[in-house]
Amino acid sequence: MFRKELKVLDCTIRDGGLINNYQFSKDFVKAVYRATCDAAVDVVELGKKLEESDEYTREKYGAWNFCDDDDLKEVIDSCDSEYRPLVAVMYDVGRVDVSKLQPRDQGPIDMVRVACYVHQIDAGIDLIKRCKDLGYETTINIMAASAAIETELVEGLVEINKADEVDYLYLVDSFGAFYSEQVTYYGEMYKKYAPDKELGFHAHNNQQLAFSNTQQAIIDGVNLLDATINGIGRGAGNCNLELLLNFLKNPKFNVRPVYKVIQEHFVPLREEIEWGFNDIYGISGHLNQHPRDAMKFRADKEHKDNCYDFYVKSIEA
Amino acid sequence: MFRKELKVLDCTIRDGGLINNYQFSKDFVKAVYRATCDAAVDVVELGKKLEESDEYTREKYGAWNFCDDDDLKEVIDSCDSEYRPLVAVMYDVGRVDVSKLQPRDQGPIDMVRVACYVHQIDAGIDLIKRCKDLGYETTINIMAASAAIETELVEGLVEINKADEVDYLYLVDSFGAFYSEQVTYYGEMYKKYAPDKELGFHAHNNQQLAFSNTQQAIIDGVNLLDATINGIGRGAGNCNLELLLNFLKNPKFNVRPVYKVIQEHFVPLREEIEWGFNDIYGISGHLNQHPRDAMKFRADKEHKDNCYDFYVKSIEA
Repeated sequence: MFRKELKVLDCTIRDGGLINNYQFSKDFVKAVYRATCDAAVDVVELGKKLEESDEYTREKYGAWNFCDDDDLKEVIDSCDSEYRPLVAVMYDVGRVDVSKLQPRDQGPIDMVRVACYVHQIDAGIDLIKRCKDLGYETTINIMAASAAIETELVEGLVEINKADEVDYLYLVDSFGAFYSEQVTYYGEMYKKYAPDKELGFHAHNNQQLAFSNTQQAIIDGVNLLDATINGIGRGAGNCNLELLLNFLKNPKFNVRPVYKVIQEHFVPLREEIEWGFNDIYGISGHLNQHPRDAMKFRADKEHKDNCYDFYVKSIEA
Repeated sequence: MFRKELKVLDCTIRDGGLINNYQFSKDFVKAVYRATCDAAVDVVELGKKLEESDEYTREKYGAWNFCDDDDLKEVIDSCDSEYRPLVAVMYDVGRVDVSKLQPRDQGPIDMVRVACYVHQIDAGIDLIKRCKDLGYETTINIMAASAAIETELVEGLVEINKADEVDYLYLVDSFGAFYSEQVTYYGEMYKKYAPDKELGFHAHNNQQLAFSNTQQAIIDGVNLLDATINGIGRGAGNCNLELLLNFLKNPKFNVRPVYKVIQEHFVPLREEIEWGFNDIYGISGHLNQHPRDAMKFRADKEHKDNCYDFYVKSIEA
């Protein structure tokens, strides 16, 4: 598959950080950043940019939940690559302070991705307008679309379409519940009600479909694709960047540095934290559930593989 | 997805046996058989039916490489289910003695699946004719279609179409190299040159696409679907039966006993043998290679996760 408009966004640190409270070492983040430079992905998302507080501290919640300019600069400056991906951070509606955001040309951030639920779309658009005023590229990522009431989702899409400040509109399969037919179904809906927007797609791998659903999104005309190195991400993880780059065949990409950083940094990391498909996440995705129950179940070392027990409990709940 | 013609074939023991030289305990095979009865899959393949010799012994190569009637009967009789799937065994062209096969009504076997490479198709058809004469349902499974010269493959398909004795023609992604577009491409070819045959599909999970490619095969009109419990199978394994049954939504199927046998028998088995996706198999699949190099690489405990080394070696080879 080759289409020159296709862009790849690596969200390894941002989605991976959901597993370990963003406690990645700076060396790890530097290695990931270098890999994304060398692989020539288009955008790299290095974390969230939430608001610090007495309770919500860097120590407890990790530097990459806050993405201070100094941290980002240190990572970026550690790499001597000529090619640089755009640097993105994620905003969670309700947990950020946009008044502290500097204009784009005064800091290391290029893109702000605003994550919101359907009922927060208006607040999300408001945030995006302020980011766009400061010069940032912007995306709105509507979470849990598979669990939304469709009329409300449609209303939100219409509002998004009116907002010139939104560069990309993201279809997000938060629960890993989509089959390819749902990717197409929602994709058609997004195109119908927000026809002026470029689309992005963010998958989860609960049913081993993150990569294939991303391919379906490509077939359906989506041009901005999220992926993570080795598929790291909350629960069953995401679309594997290395598989996606192999598929895309675009000679501008280079998969070799991705395999290198996996071998050197992700294989050891797997000794510490878990991600990827298993039957607990498969059940959770099939039932279109928030992954929190599945993650809680997996955290119980003694019973984490008891998929029959989890299935019965989930069906009866 | 619901289509009443869709049938599911469980090849857990046959494809799983490729990992452990068919050294499954009888209790394990009984548990798998019971699960397939309770789940109401259509066919269960309990092994290969190869020819024993002084060198090629049951002790060394496992009972399920030979599928003696007595072994099969013991498994079947151990279960008191009313519903029974058809029992299949696999024939490898050149490694069987069809003269020893009894008529279908005198033994426990219902279906013979003949696996052959493109250059063996004529020999495969010959075997199938003799099996059909004895009353068996038959399939021909053309291995490694992705590595075949297309004109030779087409010639074989034309021959298969002429043979009334072939009930099912299988598209087999032996190397786990297919994306959905290849499933469709080969599916169209098989339908064009063997229009009278019902099609089957057998996937491998090298690129996390076994399940999604099986869905694509369904969309493309294939009606007999191979899957294995927990995705067990050579290398990256196969399409997970539990994911497939969830997808099919046909109320005749019951996924619960599949999760039960996973929890009770497959979770412990994972302590002993490995199967499923990892980046080594991903590279092998992407490069359309026979999995033997990847399996050899994975067998080296110290270096098995060195995907960068494997990538460089494979690209340079």
